[in-house]
Amino acid sequence: MRDLAELLELGDEEHPPSERKLQILTVACRLFATKGFDGASMRDIAEECGISKATLYHHFPDKNAILRLVSMGTTKSIYLHIAAHDNPALPPMDRLKVFMVETARFFEKFRWAWLASAAMFWNDPQVRRRKQRLEWRDKYEAVLRDILRAAVENGDMREDLDIALAGRLVSSATNWLTRWYSPGGPLTAVQIVEQFHDMIVGGFQKPR
Amino acid sequence: MRDLAELLELGDEEHPPSERKLQILTVACRLFATKGFDGASMRDIAEECGISKATLYHHFPDKNAILRLVSMGTTKSIYLHIAAHDNPALPPMDRLKVFMVETARFFEKFRWAWLASAAMFWNDPQVRRRKQRLEWRDKYEAVLRDILRAAVENGDMREDLDIALAGRLVSSATNWLTRWYSPGGPLTAVQIVEQFHDMIVGGFQKPR
Repeated sequence: MRDLAELLELGDEEHPPSERKLQILTVACRLFATKGFDGASMRDIAEECGISKATLYHHFPDKNAILRLVSMGTTKSIYLHIAAHDNPALPPMDRLKVFMVETARFFEKFRWAWLASAAMFWNDPQVRRRKQRLEWRDKYEAVLRDILRAAVENGDMREDLDIALAGRLVSSATNWLTRWYSPGGPLTAVQIVEQFHDMIVGGFQKPR
Repeated sequence: MRDLAELLELGDEEHPPSERKLQILTVACRLFATKGFDGASMRDIAEECGISKATLYHHFPDKNAILRLVSMGTTKSIYLHIAAHDNPALPPMDRLKVFMVETARFFEKFRWAWLASAAMFWNDPQVRRRKQRLEWRDKYEAVLRDILRAAVENGDMREDLDIALAGRLVSSATNWLTRWYSPGGPLTAVQIVEQFHDMIVGGFQKPR
């Protein structure tokens, strides 16, 4: 749950958030992800936490406040995570692998928060906050396009490819993973995207 | 709206479904897709159709009945559409292109129905119906794996690739498209997947 505190930038080392608050956020993410945002009520969250509704309302005024915190935190943190791992000195195709692998690693670590926040991406009624969230997402996608541009300039990537669409293909592989992947299968999310990277870079076709 | 009747196998040439029923289904799909299933009420559907709630309830007992009809119809029809266009006599990589292009064409034609039904894929409480729907989806995916297997046997595709994961990559490209694509952009959905096919088959890497 410390991880979640870091993800959502709650408190700091001197003033950590309460365990109760982190428990509520953890439980709420799992319920939003499994039952849907509309399907999970404040009552469900309180019951799962083993607390009264009054205690829950003491921490959060409503479901929206919980989901807003989670979705903004996730979108910002995935960018910061990628930016911290991207190394422009590496060959571009290796940078692409780091980008894909670290996205999968982030997803594995914060799976419930990610799945919960994916549900509301476009639904936040407050325009300023939605705009802010889109800015973080744009920064994340800009890293990807920057990598692909470097690959073309480097002569590693076919220059007939549309950079924006190539980025969409990479994002499709990692984004759709979050819909079908469930832990406990033969491959981890990281192992899966390593293979996706190999397929996307090398292509299906046998070299002639 | 005739297309929708065909999609959902409503009536036949001699006994076509009523225009009213088709109007309700069309409006409901658009509302489910844009406002979410939970966000769209029977009242909303009736108002958009310009009919009374009594008239709406005469055609459908509840929202679930509408969505069930749409989601089963979409899942079955995409398989039938693909099966009708797949030609095992073609070279496998061309079959793969047909598979991807016809999936995109189907999506463009039945965009609202597809988006509406994507929302409830896992949520149908009735086990028998969910199982039936999964069977149609499995048949659709089996065509894709059959194509990829033929490509390996033919010597067109690298045999070190995992067929199931390669299929996931192809599905990711077409499935994620349904999340970000909106009509009216510079490229149609079909043009986009044609480029995806080129990228997936040839790879990003410049041939050396």
